[in-house]
Amino acid sequence: MTIDEIRAAAVRIKGHARRTPLLSSPFLDEIAGRRVLVKPECLQHTGSFKFRGAWSAISALSQDAREKGVFAFSSGNHAQGIAAAAKAHGAPAVILMPNDAPALKIANTKALGAEVVTYDRATEDRDNIGARMAAERDLTLIRPFDEPMVIAGQGTVGLEIAEDAAAIGVNKADVAVCCGGGGLTSGIALALAVDAPEMITRPVEPEGFDDVIQSLSTGQIVSNAATSGSICDAIITPAPGNITFPIMQKHCGTGVAVTEDEALRAMAHAFQRLKLVVEPGGAVGLAAALFHPKAFQHDTIIAVVSGGNVDAPMFSRALATLN
Amino acid sequence: MTIDEIRAAAVRIKGHARRTPLLSSPFLDEIAGRRVLVKPECLQHTGSFKFRGAWSAISALSQDAREKGVFAFSSGNHAQGIAAAAKAHGAPAVILMPNDAPALKIANTKALGAEVVTYDRATEDRDNIGARMAAERDLTLIRPFDEPMVIAGQGTVGLEIAEDAAAIGVNKADVAVCCGGGGLTSGIALALAVDAPEMITRPVEPEGFDDVIQSLSTGQIVSNAATSGSICDAIITPAPGNITFPIMQKHCGTGVAVTEDEALRAMAHAFQRLKLVVEPGGAVGLAAALFHPKAFQHDTIIAVVSGGNVDAPMFSRALATLN
Repeated sequence: MTIDEIRAAAVRIKGHARRTPLLSSPFLDEIAGRRVLVKPECLQHTGSFKFRGAWSAISALSQDAREKGVFAFSSGNHAQGIAAAAKAHGAPAVILMPNDAPALKIANTKALGAEVVTYDRATEDRDNIGARMAAERDLTLIRPFDEPMVIAGQGTVGLEIAEDAAAIGVNKADVAVCCGGGGLTSGIALALAVDAPEMITRPVEPEGFDDVIQSLSTGQIVSNAATSGSICDAIITPAPGNITFPIMQKHCGTGVAVTEDEALRAMAHAFQRLKLVVEPGGAVGLAAALFHPKAFQHDTIIAVVSGGNVDAPMFSRALATLN
Repeated sequence: MTIDEIRAAAVRIKGHARRTPLLSSPFLDEIAGRRVLVKPECLQHTGSFKFRGAWSAISALSQDAREKGVFAFSSGNHAQGIAAAAKAHGAPAVILMPNDAPALKIANTKALGAEVVTYDRATEDRDNIGARMAAERDLTLIRPFDEPMVIAGQGTVGLEIAEDAAAIGVNKADVAVCCGGGGLTSGIALALAVDAPEMITRPVEPEGFDDVIQSLSTGQIVSNAATSGSICDAIITPAPGNITFPIMQKHCGTGVAVTEDEALRAMAHAFQRLKLVVEPGGAVGLAAALFHPKAFQHDTIIAVVSGGNVDAPMFSRALATLN
């Protein structure tokens, strides 16, 4: 993959995906002891960056493939992105979701017009189910991260970061990215390698689910021991992808792991200082910036907030950390 | 006042105030039964639109006046806007605040570098205290709304609405504006009268604090019976201003009053669908759009969310309405 595919995706999503701004607060700068800029993809359509990759992939299909429909498996945010992008393209969408996904994410996906099929994360293999369903119904499978057109869409976040940071005089920065399978991280890393070569993309994961950090450290794809049990449900993918991993190996700096409590406290700060609703998995990049500033090299940290699809009880739990 | 003063303010604030986007969600459209666009000024610096007016007023002062310093009285959001804008201009700022203002707003104003003096809203007259302090210390008083340069700054919200709505093909709309003393409402109304003449500015207030609605209805300035006791603390100004009222008379449509419960439910929807943190007073425009759609004339309602400075307990109260 090259940046040309990201630039082409940027053309396709223009006017459809939101161009999110770079936000900041002197209060966050004070906590981190350096400048913190926040890229709020929670403000993206469907509440996460996933809409970009979904739009990129569906808009790249042939008219015939779009009319037959698309198929996706997802813990939630990819599902909503696919559902919304498919509907806008007039394409049928079938989404396979784990039956323990947050109720709000399942309900939203249905409300956005998709057909939802659930499976048991502990006893069933989603890849097998997915491949079979796609074949039986002649749908195009759109993988959540290990898919070039999806990575290209997520990479548009990197193009925007490079452009908007340069406009305010920031060329050197650590870019802290919430990392699951690496679609967003690898896309941003590819984009920044060309458009902002003095920035370093830094994957951020929850402790205990740091498969990308371990994989980068050992030089080979490593899987997490656990596949569930984190509040950061959006990013507990078991392992980096075969396409995303080599890109991250080539272009990313060392990753940073944060605790669940740090993610919750970052959510509370985003509430108080940026007026943003952030989900736990979407807050780990900001948590790294605020609570692990010494892990970063530059005076500016750009934290990508990847999503905001959080239930009220979990959000209240985050607010309780302000006491 | 004319739109020329608003256009001049737009030049002064460019690159300093954030240009907020227009957000939307199919879920909000469904509730209202028409298209709802949201202008999220909670994402503005200091968490409310007040930063625009503050920057506009301070940037219009002479160098000499700026060096002597500025003075403001405010229930909170104007205070934070003045503090931040003054600091950026290197101007000292003294803020007179009611002693029952939310603790977060007082703390933020101090942290932004201003000197805070408190008074008792029930027993002391803030205008008298303000005039005396300004005279004694040779500070320039910047009124929260009845001040042309402040109205000009708030009016930039209207310029942006006109431009961004036109870019997506929306020229006719009701623009629902959270209304206290009318600085934001009159500024927007002035801007739209020229730049989007088929849009109608509609003031929105909490029930029982609908001084602007009553004043527009009777043709003369009417004051609220109560001066406190609403959760919408940011917009419970006693009466419209001598400058703002004639502008609103000339350019605004009929106002809409909403209940506190509707404001809380609008906050919950903004949390769930837009990933925005909105304060009660900042939510009344969206509440009117969602729960009083028949009060509006056009197929599109543009709701201005004026601020997001809300404590965690009040926000949790809003989230509880989702149950």
